[in-house]
Amino acid sequence: MADIVHQTIFLSIILSVIGLLFALVTYISIKRRPAGSEKMREIAEMIHEGAMVFLRREYSVIIIFVIVAAVLLGVFLEIQTAIAFVSGALCSMLAGFFGMKAATRSNVRTAQAATSLNMGKALEVAFRGGTVMGLAVASLGLLGVAIFMYLFGDPETARYINGFAMGASSVALFARVGGGIYTKSADVGADLVGKVEAGIPEDDPRNPAVIADNVGDNVGDTAGMGADLFESFVGSLIATVAIAATNPQWSGSVRLNFMILPLAIAFTGLLSALTGIILIRFLRNIGPARALRYTSIFSNLFFLILAFFAIRHIGLEIQYFWAILAGNVAGTAIGLLSEYYTSGPPIRRIAQSSQTGAATTVITGLAVGMESVVAPTLAICVATGLAYYFAGLYGIALGAVGMLATIGITMSVDAYGPIADNAGGISEMSGLGEEVRRITDTLDALGNTTAAIGKGFAIGSAALTALALFSAYSSAVRAHHPDFHITLNNPKVVIGLLIGASIPFLIAAMTMSAVGRAAFAIVEEVRRQFREITGLLEGKARPDTARCVSISTTAALKEMIIPGLTAVLAPIAVGFLIGREALGGLLAGALASGVMLALMMANAGGAWDNAKKYIEAGNLGGKGSDTHKAAVVGDTIGDPFKDTSGPSMNILIKLMSIVSLVIAPLL
Amino acid sequence: MADIVHQTIFLSIILSVIGLLFALVTYISIKRRPAGSEKMREIAEMIHEGAMVFLRREYSVIIIFVIVAAVLLGVFLEIQTAIAFVSGALCSMLAGFFGMKAATRSNVRTAQAATSLNMGKALEVAFRGGTVMGLAVASLGLLGVAIFMYLFGDPETARYINGFAMGASSVALFARVGGGIYTKSADVGADLVGKVEAGIPEDDPRNPAVIADNVGDNVGDTAGMGADLFESFVGSLIATVAIAATNPQWSGSVRLNFMILPLAIAFTGLLSALTGIILIRFLRNIGPARALRYTSIFSNLFFLILAFFAIRHIGLEIQYFWAILAGNVAGTAIGLLSEYYTSGPPIRRIAQSSQTGAATTVITGLAVGMESVVAPTLAICVATGLAYYFAGLYGIALGAVGMLATIGITMSVDAYGPIADNAGGISEMSGLGEEVRRITDTLDALGNTTAAIGKGFAIGSAALTALALFSAYSSAVRAHHPDFHITLNNPKVVIGLLIGASIPFLIAAMTMSAVGRAAFAIVEEVRRQFREITGLLEGKARPDTARCVSISTTAALKEMIIPGLTAVLAPIAVGFLIGREALGGLLAGALASGVMLALMMANAGGAWDNAKKYIEAGNLGGKGSDTHKAAVVGDTIGDPFKDTSGPSMNILIKLMSIVSLVIAPLL
Repeated sequence: MADIVHQTIFLSIILSVIGLLFALVTYISIKRRPAGSEKMREIAEMIHEGAMVFLRREYSVIIIFVIVAAVLLGVFLEIQTAIAFVSGALCSMLAGFFGMKAATRSNVRTAQAATSLNMGKALEVAFRGGTVMGLAVASLGLLGVAIFMYLFGDPETARYINGFAMGASSVALFARVGGGIYTKSADVGADLVGKVEAGIPEDDPRNPAVIADNVGDNVGDTAGMGADLFESFVGSLIATVAIAATNPQWSGSVRLNFMILPLAIAFTGLLSALTGIILIRFLRNIGPARALRYTSIFSNLFFLILAFFAIRHIGLEIQYFWAILAGNVAGTAIGLLSEYYTSGPPIRRIAQSSQTGAATTVITGLAVGMESVVAPTLAICVATGLAYYFAGLYGIALGAVGMLATIGITMSVDAYGPIADNAGGISEMSGLGEEVRRITDTLDALGNTTAAIGKGFAIGSAALTALALFSAYSSAVRAHHPDFHITLNNPKVVIGLLIGASIPFLIAAMTMSAVGRAAFAIVEEVRRQFREITGLLEGKARPDTARCVSISTTAALKEMIIPGLTAVLAPIAVGFLIGREALGGLLAGALASGVMLALMMANAGGAWDNAKKYIEAGNLGGKGSDTHKAAVVGDTIGDPFKDTSGPSMNILIKLMSIVSLVIAPLL
Repeated sequence: MADIVHQTIFLSIILSVIGLLFALVTYISIKRRPAGSEKMREIAEMIHEGAMVFLRREYSVIIIFVIVAAVLLGVFLEIQTAIAFVSGALCSMLAGFFGMKAATRSNVRTAQAATSLNMGKALEVAFRGGTVMGLAVASLGLLGVAIFMYLFGDPETARYINGFAMGASSVALFARVGGGIYTKSADVGADLVGKVEAGIPEDDPRNPAVIADNVGDNVGDTAGMGADLFESFVGSLIATVAIAATNPQWSGSVRLNFMILPLAIAFTGLLSALTGIILIRFLRNIGPARALRYTSIFSNLFFLILAFFAIRHIGLEIQYFWAILAGNVAGTAIGLLSEYYTSGPPIRRIAQSSQTGAATTVITGLAVGMESVVAPTLAICVATGLAYYFAGLYGIALGAVGMLATIGITMSVDAYGPIADNAGGISEMSGLGEEVRRITDTLDALGNTTAAIGKGFAIGSAALTALALFSAYSSAVRAHHPDFHITLNNPKVVIGLLIGASIPFLIAAMTMSAVGRAAFAIVEEVRRQFREITGLLEGKARPDTARCVSISTTAALKEMIIPGLTAVLAPIAVGFLIGREALGGLLAGALASGVMLALMMANAGGAWDNAKKYIEAGNLGGKGSDTHKAAVVGDTIGDPFKDTSGPSMNILIKLMSIVSLVIAPLL
């Protein structure tokens, strides 16, 4: 390998170890902070325990899948691919584990910091908790890819690295689907009986499902989102490597330069994220919203400057920078578009339609969601077009890397949200009073905005990563079959396209039904406890929260299997039964309909949620009015939309692409 | 031209004239039947008048579009294409006009026939009313294509005929979207104020929107559906001709045989439909459901036999028959799948979820709708695969012809539904009593089943026709650019694909919002009349029904413009701005997401409707219970789903394909 290659790999490994150490130090410093009263510690311990139990049980299911898949990969492909696959899965699980540990330690400490009535201090604790996840995702991703580049970085062996992305993808699917089902079954179940039937407030300690609900925020929004972005990150890197390794026009050191560029870009991204994370300490007193925004903007600009010099350092032309810039800008644009559709005029439109009842609320919300697919799709198309214009197929993958390189900061901001949410829950459950609650509420409201942006970003990055993986797939097949074309004039491709387009609908249906069934189990259990535990509703007896945690866990794990296997097996079945062209069509169809459904569901769900909050803020009759009741219906429908089925689409389109890329040599 | 060509054209023209005469005679014989009491005649006259006013105003808007488009076609393409375009538009409008005339004459006569308490007699009147539409659609379609085959049936000039399909498509889009918005704004508006606010029954004469509601059944379900199927029918024929005309492997009389085959098949289809229509007179006493079913089965089997001999007569191989059979069976299968998803277990699942409120009703209904896309998609894929296996790209188009050839009977059965529905409305409004109402209710319930099957069939046929047109498009471009491939390895195609996939979502959003706005206008007007017209609610004063008709008409016409233009202009913009490959991608993307949305919306809508009816039949608490109220919310959301936005998808995917086919020579 060339010097520049070794240098990049070496620096990447060093930096990712630094990143991990930084995360560890942050975690230790969080743990040392005061964790509040005994009551707070007790509640926090229950949430922590519940989250860890879920993670343990989820991982033990996933490990079975990983072992089976690894054996199959080893037998039908190569042992190296199997090793990479297991490593990718382990890295993803490790990142999720670290992130959850940190999140469930910092929630109560954020609540405790809020008792000092210092917003900046509370923000810092919550954000630092998030950075553990952010740095774990970015560092483990970079570390894994760097190590495998070191091991298999030759063009002839680079395909083994694909296994790493497939491992990350497999974990992500189960984490997203399982976590999504868990969080919404607990949330919907707690609300339906607690808020609606018993008339007690959200996060009330008498509600047996309230701990499960808080656990759900962690397993869904932290672990699920982390696995999702981890997958996008390593997927984009590996797709770029794969395209560079199979491009017939490049050879020798030129090819190696192109293969190492994504790693160099990811290196600069992590460096910028680390700098941004350090920077926020100096910004904590300018208000939470501005602090997070400025940190993100700074990290992105710094990244672009570093990326520019990295490209020159490797000796490549400026055109590759434009591809990175296109992807980076598109990511931000899609995030902001999601923010627009889940706030501002669209939510007022929904709130107004709530005045004529639940039906019009739903119709308007669905219309908003459907309308909201157009602008982000155009953003993806413009980024793809520009990236291709400047740097060909390789540029499309590079654009995805440009979007995801600063994942360290993006994920930190995302992981901040559920911590703030949990802090609110803990302060409510342990009765810290109005003033403290007002601070955690402000942090939580900001978390909802960052979550909306984060969801949009996750979809955009999934779309671009899937596109990159799709290009890598056809590149890989073409390496063996030079005349391979996925042409829509071939009916097999069209058949693949239609089947592919139907799969996201099927997975969405499965996961929505799963949430319904799991929530129903929680509803029954909460009703039973209210009925059978005397003195519970009067606050004299304690609910059996562990049972609700256990029910949600069991239900989520059971329900994640079939959608998960469908996603893995569909491309294999189509690839072997109808052929590699049809598989190409399948990926394109799934990408097309999956991205649309993901955008529609995320934005409709977010818009319903905020329309309800808009009414609760005192508009159009306020809380308790008929308008509010109609808005609550929209919000409840939006829950599985935005937190279960919608996010599952991201993984689905990436996983099907990576599975195809890995099995490409067999087709 | 060869003898067989002349013979087929000649016979087709003769048969379609016979079909039209048969329709005319049927219409006259219906008009001669007793139209009941003065009150009934008066109500029927108002419905008739309202429908005709809408049609006139709608057509005057469409004609402006047709003239502008014809001039553009004449200037940028050829005058012959413009002539074909205008003819296609006129034939579609004529068919709609005849069908509406007949429907609005037979509704009251069906009600009158029901007063004899003879179900068979009432069925016969309603079905014969429907056959006027069925025969008009089938005969005008066959006539138009036959005449243009006579004029431009040479391979060099066959592309002019594409204009005919584009004319039919343009009318269909406006008719479907406009009619869909009209019918649902009137329906939702009448229900929201009448049933929910004022607590008066459906079709109560005191409700000012009730005439508009009954007019809506005609303009949406009769004229809209007719234009939709007319378009599919001529689209499938013309796509087959276009593929045969541009296939580089055929020449001379072989090519001519392939070009004339679709016409011959359509001829046998109309012959079978006519036979079936005559047959039903002998079946009227075996019960309405069985009578309609046996007639359909007979016509289809008879058609397949005739088609077999037609193929042998032309001298072609048996393999082309298998393609026809595949399409024909798929059409029936998709219809039956729609029936399954809108009845049976799925509706009980929705009804049960209504027990926990509106939110779970909506979630379950959406899940049912999303799940329901898979099986019909597989049916389309199997049909496409088989048709291609037996007869290549040409076979796919031929499969669509096989599905649509018996349109005469399919459309007759479809058009029967709204007539029965109207008959029920008229008997309610003129107080014909319980017994009569029971008969019209039975006929109406059957109409709902045939409507569900018909909607599924319409989607399936639209999908196969769009596929055929898509193949014709690439065939046509390849005639000028032999190396033309719509390959997904080309990012332009992927960009087209993503944009294409987003358009159905956009159109769905637009049409759903349009229904909301138009319904709101009706709600305001009905409220105003209840408030200002003294004695109206006591039945002492008469409502101003004409105003509601006028409001619905104006709103529908205003709201249909933007979605209509979007559908026409999107392919033109993408074709000229990004190129012919991107346009291919656009069509594929729109097909993929459009078919899924169409199936999801139609089936979810139908399932919600029937879940509500299931509860109203006394299950799970029956009418007036909280469960019923939750089910009503689902039904209201389902209204624009199944009758406005869902059906618009059919036209959208066909129209975009035919526009592309027509502009292909310019790209």
